[in-house]
Amino acid sequence: MKRAFITGAAGFIGSNLADRLLSNGASVVGYDNLSTGRHEFLPKQSAFTLVEGDTLKLDALTAAMKGCDTVFHLAANADVRFGTEHPKKDLEQNTAATFNVLEAMRANGIKDVAFSSTGSVYGEPDIFPTPETAPFPTQTSLYGASKLAGEGLIQAYGTGFGFRGRSFRFVSILGERYTHGHVYDFYKKLRANPKRLDVLGDGTQRKSYLYVQDCIDAMLLAMDKSPGGVFNLGTDEYCAVKDSIGWITEALGVKPELKFGTEKRGWIGDSPFIFLDCAKIRALGWKPKVTIKDGVLKTLAWLKANPQVLEPE
Amino acid sequence: MKRAFITGAAGFIGSNLADRLLSNGASVVGYDNLSTGRHEFLPKQSAFTLVEGDTLKLDALTAAMKGCDTVFHLAANADVRFGTEHPKKDLEQNTAATFNVLEAMRANGIKDVAFSSTGSVYGEPDIFPTPETAPFPTQTSLYGASKLAGEGLIQAYGTGFGFRGRSFRFVSILGERYTHGHVYDFYKKLRANPKRLDVLGDGTQRKSYLYVQDCIDAMLLAMDKSPGGVFNLGTDEYCAVKDSIGWITEALGVKPELKFGTEKRGWIGDSPFIFLDCAKIRALGWKPKVTIKDGVLKTLAWLKANPQVLEPE
Repeated sequence: MKRAFITGAAGFIGSNLADRLLSNGASVVGYDNLSTGRHEFLPKQSAFTLVEGDTLKLDALTAAMKGCDTVFHLAANADVRFGTEHPKKDLEQNTAATFNVLEAMRANGIKDVAFSSTGSVYGEPDIFPTPETAPFPTQTSLYGASKLAGEGLIQAYGTGFGFRGRSFRFVSILGERYTHGHVYDFYKKLRANPKRLDVLGDGTQRKSYLYVQDCIDAMLLAMDKSPGGVFNLGTDEYCAVKDSIGWITEALGVKPELKFGTEKRGWIGDSPFIFLDCAKIRALGWKPKVTIKDGVLKTLAWLKANPQVLEPE
Repeated sequence: MKRAFITGAAGFIGSNLADRLLSNGASVVGYDNLSTGRHEFLPKQSAFTLVEGDTLKLDALTAAMKGCDTVFHLAANADVRFGTEHPKKDLEQNTAATFNVLEAMRANGIKDVAFSSTGSVYGEPDIFPTPETAPFPTQTSLYGASKLAGEGLIQAYGTGFGFRGRSFRFVSILGERYTHGHVYDFYKKLRANPKRLDVLGDGTQRKSYLYVQDCIDAMLLAMDKSPGGVFNLGTDEYCAVKDSIGWITEALGVKPELKFGTEKRGWIGDSPFIFLDCAKIRALGWKPKVTIKDGVLKTLAWLKANPQVLEPE
């Protein structure tokens, strides 16, 4: 990998990946429309180039990708909760955009691509931890459906055009530059009012989380060692929302009254239990270095040190 | 079902379905852009209304659907072979169009939808006959990927908006008004030159086929008896391409020299073996009445009686 192309390079995972690739000696072209990404996350090195643009603009995307050898397609509508408020957003930003990335690659003769998919494609599975070969699932969210569609496109470009696509089914990712999700929401709420915390759902939802640097280790390993395929990326543990609330409130030294909802799901399409079997990526030699609890605490520490991210840029 | 809406109503399956629903006493609004559908297939009754339009035009689609209670979304790019020649066609006509159908339904307060998916979503499965709960597959064609994306959208609209979606994973459908596929291709070739038949692939591909009236029986049963879900639709048998060639040449009284290709697959993304486990739809009380051989012969007889369909309308 000499010159990598990262969509969503100003985002949480994309900017951490850009830093890593630069430190590994690659040059990086970042592509971002800065709708949710932040200038402050972008690398300041000369080996990094930002192209400000939208993944829905195929011509601009194709031009920006020129000269690159590997694509990390991380740009997305990553907020899983509001699908029913604007269904077209997931279709455009997660499915149509992925198609454009593949077409831009084809025009540039690039075959290696990494795609940020999601454990949400399993819907509400019956098997835990859930392997990549779980029974053909039913989609329960527009977000999951739109990412599944992206995976399918990447696979079809594998058969049709010889692409080497790696789709990564992420659990929730934690760490520095995290700007949405439950730690963000809880910290923002407790900062405004340390005496009360409203929680989406009844607090029993169980989720798995992965630290961003562990996530990047895994992606780069799969790009190096595997010719293609789908990989679950998560830790071999999970926690309940209530556990995470305990860690966060203890670290902040607050004792809020907890106001839980009555539903098992935090929102429409929320999966009450996400826990992925990561034997496939582990078989390549990877394992996570950071526990869920430490990932939550690192994230919280970073948010405390960077309160500007609690507001739009 | 009092007033049904059929996308692709001038097509093979859509026009047969329109006839059936009309004979059952329903009124039918057909929506078709007549790109591959044919005027001659359309019902001539007053209970049938044609709206000539494109599924990519959301406003027109929404207006046309007004007053209907059930949607059969059959319009598609149904040619599975040429995906790599125009990748955008599958994405637009099978994925984006399905999104538009769902949005038009939402605007009209309609919740019941049938969707023509495909056994191709299983890619190249390891289990035969392949059940709906087969291991999470890898897509091998743009056609399959685009239909899988459609299924996912329908499922997500189930969770998000209370839709009752039934996605039918068809094997190849045969019968009257069939205007593409291997029987069509072989008949057209043998009509031009009865002494030679060029075959895509090495002739060992094994496929399952279903007669169109059996297909319609199954769809209507599932719409009636099931609140939603995915159903394989096929016969409990399969045949090799070579078998079908034998039936066709015998029925035509020709003995062509057979020119096979060398590949196991007839085209990029072709699945060398399609055979679906249909226990789920059978459990609702359905079984096919026509064998594969009889389906092929009925199709051939209809093509002989309607040679005009060998040419564009």
